[in-house]
Parts: sequence; structure tokens; C-alpha cells
Amino acid sequence: MPVNKKRGQQSILFAAPPYITSTATIVGPMEGEGFLHDYFDMIMKDNINGQTSWEKCESYMLEWAIKKAVEKDGSTLDDIDYMLAGDLLNQLMSTHFAMRSLGRPFLGLYGACSTLAESMLVGAVLIDGGFGNKVAVAVSSHHDTAERQYRFPTELGVQRPLVSQWTVTGAGAAIVASIGTGPRIVAATIGKVVDMGVKDPNSMGPAMAPAAVATLWQHFQDTGRQPSYYDMIYTGDLGSVGKMLAIQLMQEKGLDLTPNYEDCGCMIYREEQDPHAGASGCASSGVVFCGYLYPALLQGKLKKILVVGTGSLHSSTSYQQKESIPCIAHAVAIEM
Amino acid sequence: MPVNKKRGQQSILFAAPPYITSTATIVGPMEGEGFLHDYFDMIMKDNINGQTSWEKCESYMLEWAIKKAVEKDGSTLDDIDYMLAGDLLNQLMSTHFAMRSLGRPFLGLYGACSTLAESMLVGAVLIDGGFGNKVAVAVSSHHDTAERQYRFPTELGVQRPLVSQWTVTGAGAAIVASIGTGPRIVAATIGKVVDMGVKDPNSMGPAMAPAAVATLWQHFQDTGRQPSYYDMIYTGDLGSVGKMLAIQLMQEKGLDLTPNYEDCGCMIYREEQDPHAGASGCASSGVVFCGYLYPALLQGKLKKILVVGTGSLHSSTSYQQKESIPCIAHAVAIEM
Repeated sequence: MPVNKKRGQQSILFAAPPYITSTATIVGPMEGEGFLHDYFDMIMKDNINGQTSWEKCESYMLEWAIKKAVEKDGSTLDDIDYMLAGDLLNQLMSTHFAMRSLGRPFLGLYGACSTLAESMLVGAVLIDGGFGNKVAVAVSSHHDTAERQYRFPTELGVQRPLVSQWTVTGAGAAIVASIGTGPRIVAATIGKVVDMGVKDPNSMGPAMAPAAVATLWQHFQDTGRQPSYYDMIYTGDLGSVGKMLAIQLMQEKGLDLTPNYEDCGCMIYREEQDPHAGASGCASSGVVFCGYLYPALLQGKLKKILVVGTGSLHSSTSYQQKESIPCIAHAVAIEM
Repeated sequence: MPVNKKRGQQSILFAAPPYITSTATIVGPMEGEGFLHDYFDMIMKDNINGQTSWEKCESYMLEWAIKKAVEKDGSTLDDIDYMLAGDLLNQLMSTHFAMRSLGRPFLGLYGACSTLAESMLVGAVLIDGGFGNKVAVAVSSHHDTAERQYRFPTELGVQRPLVSQWTVTGAGAAIVASIGTGPRIVAATIGKVVDMGVKDPNSMGPAMAPAAVATLWQHFQDTGRQPSYYDMIYTGDLGSVGKMLAIQLMQEKGLDLTPNYEDCGCMIYREEQDPHAGASGCASSGVVFCGYLYPALLQGKLKKILVVGTGSLHSSTSYQQKESIPCIAHAVAIEM
């Protein structure tokens, strides 16, 4: 019998916390003009980048980010034991087309915009459990593919409500390894599906906030930690509306997030870019973590962070059938 | 540093092989009239079962199968550390709606019809790695939801080509545990995405056969085993056309599958039910393994089997964009 690494109801404490040995990011032009301009490995000139469809562009980004992370790690694709990845498209289209050319053992994950956290925690499980030495984890999203699939084709020019968020065009990848230097994945909390009855697919922040709060609350219960244990706590893509709601819901539970909490969806676009309630998509936490937070950890500007991936699990079919939106959040604690 | 459990290029040998302590199945009426009539826990009277949509019926089946497997295990939902599940629908709609009421920590997986094998292997990784004691794994598919999404709404009555397969209406669930009795998951081989250029979404057996053969071949390379090591080898849903092709492709590699190989897609429907090339869907391997093979292992009729889940990873968007079909196969070795 191996050592039990489960803690409390929903959490894992890794016995030999895996290292994140490199990350890479690629984004579209709008993301490149935002707050994190200086932190991306590549900024595309437009949202199609010479491909014949937005989907192929998204697939290109995912593949590019993985290859770049592998290169920055000083590795080759053959050194990667497994790849774990996902995106927002039906049947993970972008991911599967990228995996076709990457040619490594692959496990497909779907957690909507929580997929980066899900893939980091499953990657850490594979490494800490002794099933391999290096895993590549990656996510992508694309504004135009996501809008077409979930809401309206962007060509229609439908006016977006103010509560809506802007799906990030970008991809982020990270290498999780058994040996190395750099930040380590020390703990994770696996979320439950939470659905508080929100039905508007334009209003994902408010839909996801209760799931984020449930996972955060459970993380503190399971680990015995307080929010102040972390230098910073980041949710994935609650946006400005969902972030306010998360703070309020945590306050009702007696925990104050205000001193050290931010949402990745509020860190990408400038106000004048008119993103409405902020950024969303798998690449929201993907490019903020892989582009901005990872170097900050490496440089010691941050020492302990909690990344809470937030996913809105609706489909266009569930919306058409007038169903409310099931949501989930997974937390990953990363320490330098 | 933990013991390295990776073997060869793509395989895992579990150090303390997890037990499969119970399984459960539920199917539609057509599946109930097939070869495996006597092996299902529940046969629904029709494909909607009193729900207001086929999607809700599929979600009902998944939830029912999980609850039944938990009950047969003598457990309660609270005993289940994690749930791993997936289905064929966009954004795993059936799974997410089931998880809303099941209320357990959940990881969403997408491997199309390979999802049972994927969830069993990730479940075994969580148990063998010491991250929990009990995991529920489950998959569902539904003929009418899948046809509408991938091909034509069934109400149109479009004639199906003879190479096409019939998506199984059903769900299968299994409990994977650290202690218990019964068959154990001893090894797994994680597949790579393989795309040989097949573009017809009606022709999934031929599209998936090369992926199945690639994973089978690698499994034998990595483990040093021969096909004869196993009492039986089962692919998930190649159907009659894909099965012939798999045998032929393995013959070209010098390995003879004919003595001990069958495809789950050829084990469900009778010829006179006119399924054309056989069964497909997550529930093809789902209900065959959980309904028929698991009891055969328990009773000692089978001692060593290899289950190779096969997944066709296309989407209706990729088809409309004239892309070929990426496929994957994951293998799980189960021994009594």
C-alpha cells in the first residue's frame, strides 16, 4: 500500500512535489496589446496567422506553445512521457489536431476553462505517482472559434452584453517534471460540479463564482491553511463581475480574500480595449500562469500561489434546451 | 523519488494493481434485445425513459450506472474519492449534468469511444499512486444524441451506409479500489493520436483500426508479451470492418490476433437487428466490459484480458472543414 496522499475531502498533498521546469505562451494581437505585452513568447499579427480556419490557428497555437515549452526546457519531444491537454471546442478539435503531429502518448481532458489546473494536477499525479519523468500540459482558446460555437459567429457583429467576457486567443504550455529546479506543485484540490441556476451563457463569471468559492473553501478546510498562507490567490476567468461575487461569497463564509486575490481574467486586457467584464477561456489562466506568474515565481517575486481554474461546463445544446450552467473549479498550489 | 512504473515507450506497470470491485450497466431496448440480453443490470423500455430529451436520458443512464456500481460495491457516494467520466456529446453534456447531482470530486476526460479505457487507466493511476482509495469511472453514449450531433438527426430517416456502426444507447460504470477482491488493473498503454487520412465520419472502424494496432503493437513491445499472453484481447468499437482491418494490419507486423481477439462492437447486436458494421460509442466497450467481461473474470471464465478502447476524435466542425479523422486507442490489461 502506498502512502495516502489524499488530505481531507477533496485535496491531495504531493509526496515529492513535481517541478514546473518551463512554460511557454503564444497569443493573438489583442492580448499582445494588453497589460502582459512584455510577457508572451510570441504575439501573432492577426487571429488566423496564415491558416485556413480559426480552428487551425488555435491548433497551431497549442502545438507552438508545447514545442516552445519543450525547447525552453532543453528537452526534445521524445523526452515527454505524456501530454495532457484540452480546449473549448467540441471534441477538443484544436488539441487533437495538434496531437496528430506531436506524436506523443496523450490523454484528453475536458474541464472547459479549468483545463490548465486540471491538466497540471493530473500531470503532477502522474509524476508524483512514479508513472513518468516529464509531462507536457497545455491549453488553448480562440475568440472567434469560441464565439461561433457558444454564442454567435463574430461576423454577425452581435452586441455583447456588459457582463460578457472576451475569450482569450492564445495557448499556454508547461513542463511538469520529477527532477529539476523552479516552482513545485505541492497540493491540489479537485472540484465538484456546482450549478446555482445561472442560464445565460454570456454571464459565466457569476455562474462560475460559486464553484470557485466551493473549491477555495474546501482547499482551506482540507489543508488547514488560511488565505494568508499564499502570497497570491488567482482564479482563472471569473472576470470583474465574478471576482466581486467570489469575494462576497467568501466574506459570507468568514474569509477575506481582498488582501491577496486577483482573477486572471482581469489581468490581460486594458479597460480601453473594451473587453467588458474581462477575459475568459482556457487560455485566460493559461497565458497568465505560463506567461506572467511562472517567471514571477522563478524570480522570487512570488513564493506561494494558489491557482484556481474555473470552468463553465455548458454546451450550445444545453443552452438551447434551457438548462442552467454546471460549473467546476480545480485548485493547484504552487510554491518556489 | 518513487519507483518508476513506466515500461518502454508508452506503458505503465502498476506496482500495487488496483482492484475493480464492482461494475454496473444500463442499456436501451435495442441493446437489450441483443446477444448480451442477460448481462445488463437494467434495460430501458425506450430511448427516452420518461425524460424530456435524449440528452437527459443519457445523463440519467450515466448517473444510474454510477449509483448502481457504488451500491453493488457496498459503498455510498461519500466513499468515492473521485469520479472520472466522459461521453461523446459536446462539452461532455451528459456527464456534467450527472455530476451536478452526484456531487463528488470530478475530473472530466475526453477520449471519444476510448473514454472507458482512459478513465480506467487514470483511475488506476490515482489509486496506485496513493491519491485515494476508491474511484468511480463511467461512460455513456446514446444513439439519438450521437447521430444528431455527428451525422443526421434520426428523425430525418437518412439511409445509413453499410460500413456505418450503430451508437450504443447505454452506460457502464466501474469502481476501481486500492483494496478488495476481483480482477485487477495490472498494466496500461497510453495511445498516440493516429490519423491515416480517413475522412468519412460513417467509416469509423477503418479510421480507428490503425490507432488500435499501433497501441496493441506498442503494448507488446513495452511489456515483452505476446498476444497469446492474454486469454482474450478486446477492442472497443472497431465493428466488423475495422476488426478485419486490425487483424490484417497486425498480420503485416507478424502478429496473429485471430485465435483470441474480438471487438466489443461485434458482441452487442444480432445480425437481424441490422446494425450494419456493428456497435460503436463510449458505451460499446462500456457495457460489454462492465456487463459481460467483468462477471466472466469474476467467475474465472477469463483470467487475463486486454481491453483496447478505441476513439474517433473528429467533430462535426472538423468534418465540415474537410479534415481527416484523428484517432486514439488506450489499452488496459486486467487480470484475475
